[in-house]
This record gives sequence, C-alpha cells and structure tokens, in this order.
Amino acid sequence: MKLYGYWRSSTAYRVRIALNLKGLTAEQVPVHLVRDGGEQHRPEYTALNPQAAVPTVVTEGGSVLTQSLAICEWLEERHPRPPLLPSDPEARARVRAFALAIACEIHPLVNLRVLGHLTGSLGLSEDDKLAWYRHWTGLGLAQLEALVAGHSGTGRFVQGDSPTLADICLVPQLYNARRFDLDLSACPTLVRIDQACRELPAFADAAPERQPDAAVT
Amino acid sequence: MKLYGYWRSSTAYRVRIALNLKGLTAEQVPVHLVRDGGEQHRPEYTALNPQAAVPTVVTEGGSVLTQSLAICEWLEERHPRPPLLPSDPEARARVRAFALAIACEIHPLVNLRVLGHLTGSLGLSEDDKLAWYRHWTGLGLAQLEALVAGHSGTGRFVQGDSPTLADICLVPQLYNARRFDLDLSACPTLVRIDQACRELPAFADAAPERQPDAAVT
Repeated sequence: MKLYGYWRSSTAYRVRIALNLKGLTAEQVPVHLVRDGGEQHRPEYTALNPQAAVPTVVTEGGSVLTQSLAICEWLEERHPRPPLLPSDPEARARVRAFALAIACEIHPLVNLRVLGHLTGSLGLSEDDKLAWYRHWTGLGLAQLEALVAGHSGTGRFVQGDSPTLADICLVPQLYNARRFDLDLSACPTLVRIDQACRELPAFADAAPERQPDAAVT
Repeated sequence: MKLYGYWRSSTAYRVRIALNLKGLTAEQVPVHLVRDGGEQHRPEYTALNPQAAVPTVVTEGGSVLTQSLAICEWLEERHPRPPLLPSDPEARARVRAFALAIACEIHPLVNLRVLGHLTGSLGLSEDDKLAWYRHWTGLGLAQLEALVAGHSGTGRFVQGDSPTLADICLVPQLYNARRFDLDLSACPTLVRIDQACRELPAFADAAPERQPDAAVT
C-alpha cells in the first residue's frame, strides 16, 4: 500500500493515524504542496488524483482511493479490527457527524488552497487572511465543543473510551489551529481529548514533525 | 422521524433523496435559513443542532442526527434495502470519495453562510461573490467530471446503474450551480447522470420546488 501525503496536511495526518490504529503500514510518498507551485498539480499526480489534493492511497490490489474519510471507511471495511467506529448505529452516526463537522465545516475553509486564494486572487492582506482563519476555525471548534461537552456519549475520547474516526479528525485540526496560534481556551473538552489521543503511539507516530518529509524548522 | 430542513438547502435535499430512495417518510419541519436572521440560530434549534445548520433528523427513538452524509450512512445501516452504497469495498470507497468531493470541496465554500460572510464581514461586492462562487464550484465540478468521464465504474449513474450516495450529492449541487447560472458545458457526464437521476421519482419528489416550504418565486 502507498500513501501519497504531505507531512503538514491535516487530511494526510488523519489517514496516518487510521493506518497506525489498524496496525498497518504504507509506503509514504511525499507530495510537496508548496514547492514549485505544488507537486500535487503535476500531470503524473493528477492522473492519479484529479482533485490535485492529498491524501491518495494506492492499495496492494492497485485501486486508487481518494478523500481521507472515504479512505478511513475503506480501511474500516477491509481491516475491521480494531474498529474506528462504534457498533451502535446511533453512536456511529454521532462519530461520523463529528468527523464531518471538521471535514465539511472547518478544514475546507482554512486549507492551503483557500488561504492562498484569499491573498492571491482576492488580494486580501495577511491580517485579513488570519482573521478569516480564526473566524471559521474558532466558530467550528466552538460548535464541536458544544457537541462533546456534557454529552453522555463523550468519554476519554469523543465517543466512549476508544479512539474513533472523530478523534482521527480532531487531532490534526487542533494541530493546525495551534500553528495559527488560535486560542483554544473556549474548548476545554476538545483539548482534553486531544491530549488523551496524543498519548497513544498511533497518534504520536503520525504527528507531522515525525514524518520523513518534515521540514527542519 | 422528523427532518428539519429548508427547501433550497442542498444538504437537506440530499437527505430527502435518500429517504425517498429508501421508501421512508419523515415529517418535514422547515427551518427558514434567511428570514429574521435565520431560524437556525434560534436557541431551541441550536439546542438540537449546535452547528446551527440543516439538516437535522430526529429518529423515532429520539436520537438526534446531524450532518447529511452521517444521516445517509445511518439510513443505510438501519434500512439497508435498497442500498445507497455498492457492496464491493473499492466501489464503496469510490462512491464515498465522490460524495465527499462535493461535501468537502465544493459545498462548504459556496453555501449561504460563507457567501454572506464575503459580502458582509469582508465587504466584497456582489460581483466578487459571484466570481468566488463560480471559481470554486467550476473547479470542483471539473474535478468531478474527471472522476467519472471514461471511468470503468461509471454507468447510468456515478457508480454503475443504480443511484448511490454519489448521485444523492451530485443532483443538489447541480441544482445549486444552475441557480447561479454556472456554465455546465464542461461537465457533460455529470449533466447526463443528473438528468438520469431526476427522471426517478425519488429524486424528482425531493426537488426544492416540490417542498411544502418552497417560496413562490
């Protein structure tokens, strides 16, 4: 199995955590999202993934999988143990909704291509870009906090006491928030869960700074 | 079962199609996203859905489900026939990736709250807002076209000859694109599939203009 990713991409980070939780290994193929205008736009990469985005997984059978949450669901179906989703359908729905609240409400608005569009095509200032980042990430995290604080389903992790797809999405988004110096004091439950996750080797080993393509900063 | 939605919301539209394909009915509870600053921000609604967004489903057992794709996956698990996902794991991954390419790459950038933020907080003009809409939707649809055109998995619908979660996301996004007069001539495969879908009663009956809260325009 091959994983095309980038050390600091929060969507590739999700897949690294999922692979680690499943005890699977993949050959990492770095796709540098910034250098030379972005290696994800090269024809040999867009032939694989027309969305010009990471991650992409190529399975041992040669199938090409895109979109991090679709890849995680595929991992769950092909390698069910340990599970990334609880068994109860309503709990599964809660986990997926939390993951999607990140994948559909936060990340799409604050990823590299959108931030680049703001300062590029739209001509906004760096300050405007940062205000945009903080607005959408801050709003999204406050809404996530409301989903977990005091909810009976919340345990050591977002759902109960085992990590799930929800935690797989949470940790990379909080990593991203810290890169932008976002104040997380309004999200104590998220911060507590993030800490519990990062104590697990599956999460720690997936951290951006531990990847082979991590830049020395 | 209750479905909190809005006639013109493309995410509520997805859930209406899924319910119809499953042969299920839900009591529709309209949440007007524009009137009086948006009914989705009312405390009685955010108590149900802290994200202040539609759709929300309340099951007969009283569980509250949010995020349209999580709701569709729940429907699939609780009511497996007819399936919204193929049986083969790689084909399932392809369907989910297509759905997520809409839910994570197009819709989040061009929904009501983001377009409102552009002209409100950022003070952009209507023309700039339309250019933003056309940039992200046009780019996203071109990438979707590349996922289906000439792919062996594509049939009468995105995956084979039965409608799936991919089609459930495609039709509302093309409805939205037409509202904004987007030129769809670069996406002939998407347009063909959309047409095939809308010939089915499950899709036709879910159309915005057929909903009880549809405005007379």
